[in-house]
Amino acid sequence: MLLGRMMNFPLTVTHFLRRAKDYFPGSEIVSRATDKSLHRSTYSAFYGRACRLANALKKLGVKQGDRVATLCWNHQPHLEAYFGVPAMGAVVHTLNLRLHPSEIGYIANHAEDKVVIVDRSLLPLFEKFAETVRSIEKVIVVGDPHSQAPVSGAYLDYETLLAAEPDTFDFPNLDENAAAMICYTSGTTGNPKGVVYSHRSTVLHALVASLPDELGVRQADTVLPVVPMFHAAAWGLPYMAVGAGAKIVFPGPHLDPASLLDLMAAEKATIAGGVPTIWIGILALLDKDPKKWDLSSIRAMVIGGSAAPATMIEGFQTRHGLEVLHAWGMTETNPLGTVARVKHHLTKLSAEDQLRVRATQGYAAPFVEVRHTDDSGNVLPWNGESMGELEVRGPWVAASYFGGEGSDKFTADGWFKTGDVVTIDKEGYVKITDRAKDVIKSGGEWISSVALENALMSHPAVLEAAVFAAKHAKWDERPVAAIVLKEGQTATKEDLTTHIESRFAKFWLPEDYVFLNQIPRTSTGKFLKSKLRDEHGEILLKK
Amino acid sequence: MLLGRMMNFPLTVTHFLRRAKDYFPGSEIVSRATDKSLHRSTYSAFYGRACRLANALKKLGVKQGDRVATLCWNHQPHLEAYFGVPAMGAVVHTLNLRLHPSEIGYIANHAEDKVVIVDRSLLPLFEKFAETVRSIEKVIVVGDPHSQAPVSGAYLDYETLLAAEPDTFDFPNLDENAAAMICYTSGTTGNPKGVVYSHRSTVLHALVASLPDELGVRQADTVLPVVPMFHAAAWGLPYMAVGAGAKIVFPGPHLDPASLLDLMAAEKATIAGGVPTIWIGILALLDKDPKKWDLSSIRAMVIGGSAAPATMIEGFQTRHGLEVLHAWGMTETNPLGTVARVKHHLTKLSAEDQLRVRATQGYAAPFVEVRHTDDSGNVLPWNGESMGELEVRGPWVAASYFGGEGSDKFTADGWFKTGDVVTIDKEGYVKITDRAKDVIKSGGEWISSVALENALMSHPAVLEAAVFAAKHAKWDERPVAAIVLKEGQTATKEDLTTHIESRFAKFWLPEDYVFLNQIPRTSTGKFLKSKLRDEHGEILLKK
Repeated sequence: MLLGRMMNFPLTVTHFLRRAKDYFPGSEIVSRATDKSLHRSTYSAFYGRACRLANALKKLGVKQGDRVATLCWNHQPHLEAYFGVPAMGAVVHTLNLRLHPSEIGYIANHAEDKVVIVDRSLLPLFEKFAETVRSIEKVIVVGDPHSQAPVSGAYLDYETLLAAEPDTFDFPNLDENAAAMICYTSGTTGNPKGVVYSHRSTVLHALVASLPDELGVRQADTVLPVVPMFHAAAWGLPYMAVGAGAKIVFPGPHLDPASLLDLMAAEKATIAGGVPTIWIGILALLDKDPKKWDLSSIRAMVIGGSAAPATMIEGFQTRHGLEVLHAWGMTETNPLGTVARVKHHLTKLSAEDQLRVRATQGYAAPFVEVRHTDDSGNVLPWNGESMGELEVRGPWVAASYFGGEGSDKFTADGWFKTGDVVTIDKEGYVKITDRAKDVIKSGGEWISSVALENALMSHPAVLEAAVFAAKHAKWDERPVAAIVLKEGQTATKEDLTTHIESRFAKFWLPEDYVFLNQIPRTSTGKFLKSKLRDEHGEILLKK
Repeated sequence: MLLGRMMNFPLTVTHFLRRAKDYFPGSEIVSRATDKSLHRSTYSAFYGRACRLANALKKLGVKQGDRVATLCWNHQPHLEAYFGVPAMGAVVHTLNLRLHPSEIGYIANHAEDKVVIVDRSLLPLFEKFAETVRSIEKVIVVGDPHSQAPVSGAYLDYETLLAAEPDTFDFPNLDENAAAMICYTSGTTGNPKGVVYSHRSTVLHALVASLPDELGVRQADTVLPVVPMFHAAAWGLPYMAVGAGAKIVFPGPHLDPASLLDLMAAEKATIAGGVPTIWIGILALLDKDPKKWDLSSIRAMVIGGSAAPATMIEGFQTRHGLEVLHAWGMTETNPLGTVARVKHHLTKLSAEDQLRVRATQGYAAPFVEVRHTDDSGNVLPWNGESMGELEVRGPWVAASYFGGEGSDKFTADGWFKTGDVVTIDKEGYVKITDRAKDVIKSGGEWISSVALENALMSHPAVLEAAVFAAKHAKWDERPVAAIVLKEGQTATKEDLTTHIESRFAKFWLPEDYVFLNQIPRTSTGKFLKSKLRDEHGEILLKK
């Protein structure tokens, strides 16, 4: 083998940080506080503060490889941790504040967090599990305009610590394979598992996710990460934005539709990213009051985290002229795997057919490779029909979990088993039909709950629909649909079946319906079908 | 140190090739032959042919690390070599057909090329040096519609070889640091030197150069690489285009302005890249006949290879509505280093001031780092005034040359010395003022020949201007301008000085002028100032 003779220049987050200072000192960072006030800063100040944080942590004894946890909403200090901690060689661990305190404690213990940076408003949550985490040596509290009282003696104040330090730091030369971040899966099955992102995976992910056919983040953008920064490195948006020099707007804890719309309009956001639940709420509010907000600056609303219904994508586009960009990923994939861009030759299709393409999970980003397999591990054809478990590999896909747990998620030939059941069509568009654990097997045939849900959600009276497997004496399992109706709307079981029956084989149609006020959800906003099965799974047996 | 736990998935050209087949089988590749006929193909066929080439080369005894040279114009078989050769583990070496045959022979010997792929039309050139290259074992001839006679017994026919092989290949798993390509510098000083690109550098370069703020190549694009594929991996455009799944149009040997304009219009090119000479010719032709070609599909004309005059950038924009994107790079930088994008906050400037920004070499792409130093190696401030030699580093910057030559081009602290003399302003925009070897030192003060040239070229009668250092009894060196006037136009020395004198200190103004029919150029189209100095360098002493 002949080796290349190019520089061994590591792909580290540190480069993005230096680039922010050198090229984009005036780029703006806007953070909304708990009292809804807006705080404006610049990349220049951000760089200095990230250096101050690194100095402060070093003084507190944080060494290369040590874990520094955050328990924070989306705001500038969280961004400072995203960059300052990895750039000094330590590892930032984003704790998911939506989990049960005992789970957060489990995760902090498992990761052996040494320092925790906590929002003042989240101290009551922190104190519910703090004592169970033996590894924590220091707690740093990020201020809150709502509650200015000094923090107690046991806690350190973020601003006081930073003020005492110089605004430069002699960043170490790091191995690009060194850990930069740890994010835990939400653990709907078994204990949460830690995914350890390297500098290399974080950088490569940010670069590829910024490509024009992926999210296409550029310097002129104003990026609004609605997705909480404790999820899957907030989809890489903080790294993409800083790498490009874009303006960043953080919503703080205010994730209700009206607050988000106010912020998007006031700050002229061009790209925002969040889970479907967020966008469903926003669409409903926009439909009520379509002229209230000027959203002409928006060029892409990125939806990921779980499958977005086609009716929502269409609703934004036809009723409000807003472009939804549907993407798929997981904590284990840093997270971007696929984006539903319409390929050039498909732009000749009818609007309806293009919507069908845009409602898939999309095709793989460069350097992500996908395949799907049946129960015996056979690789399935890309025919748009064969359903199998999606497997992925690539430079930003986990090779194992922290501590070596969950090794059954990785195949012998080097692929990660996503747990998503999908079809892949001949163009390579991936379409999720189910989570593997939520698959409905009726008389040996697989029925896609996601396809049924999308069809049901196209009924004008339906706000949300979640289809789950109910036990059945003859067919083993049959689909049952949990329905949340829109305020003031009505629909009978018969109405719903009539609405969708032309689109499916007869045996696919829901065997029954349950009408609920809300669908139970996981901490990341996904339907919690195990709970639906626990509560309603025997509904057909009782009849 | 804690290591990340992400997959060790190598960054290789092979991934782009697989992606081409899996996701973009129908994307088009158009090649113009020597007889000007257009040949249409698809990525699907391209993939199969790249596999056939790999099989054929393997059968000919090509092993991992072996060099396979090309002596070809831009066309699909050249693209097949760009991908098939590195994907099988060998190294593609692009020979520059514009060099003197003895130089090409030197280079082929130096690289120890084992197989050469030659255009039929270039066989006469090849035969001028072939016998001097002891390492060549096989010669493969790419057909030519102009001359269908079978190739002689000593040569192999490209199409015959491919036809005999299967259209799949079991590509090896490669180390991302393995060599993928060798490109030689044009060697205006000393012998040409080999730059050995790795798979990693090639891939990272293609990804970053495709970002929205760099060249922004996307799937919907039609990419026309005017820059010959024997230059600096043709700026990465072939890798960027295939990686994105874009349509590609190859001009073959027809690089005259009319042929290029015909092709751009007929194939609806969206992005084209070439050196300033090409664009100067195109602009002149467009000015003569502005309505002849419909160029509405074009969104960016990338200019690199040497500095583009501001008047040209402005001419395209104001007279033809065409956007020029000015970029800087070298063979040693794969080549993209900087792109002259106007930062968002600078779009508030006047059109004139924005033009000034767009006429710089731009600011560094992500993961390229730049600095400039004085004669003693001191790093200079970014003030837009201090002139010094540009130094760069990054994952696609050479760490050394093949064979270890030219070690004086690399600093002890890991930077590559570009030989370009530049200023860098506070925004980070780099502006070339000279090649280090062409700097004019008048009484100890540095004078920028490039600034004078740009000013002179804004005179309506001037087609081209090259300013060089002439010996001077008192001041050591003084600037003298070589001028090529436009056809049918006249201008006196006094006219020229009057035109530019308000823009410069008096001592910067050219001491004299020489009027020429053409400026001597290097094989890559750059002004050959050493020849101007040889022929006219003593003009001031004789007076």
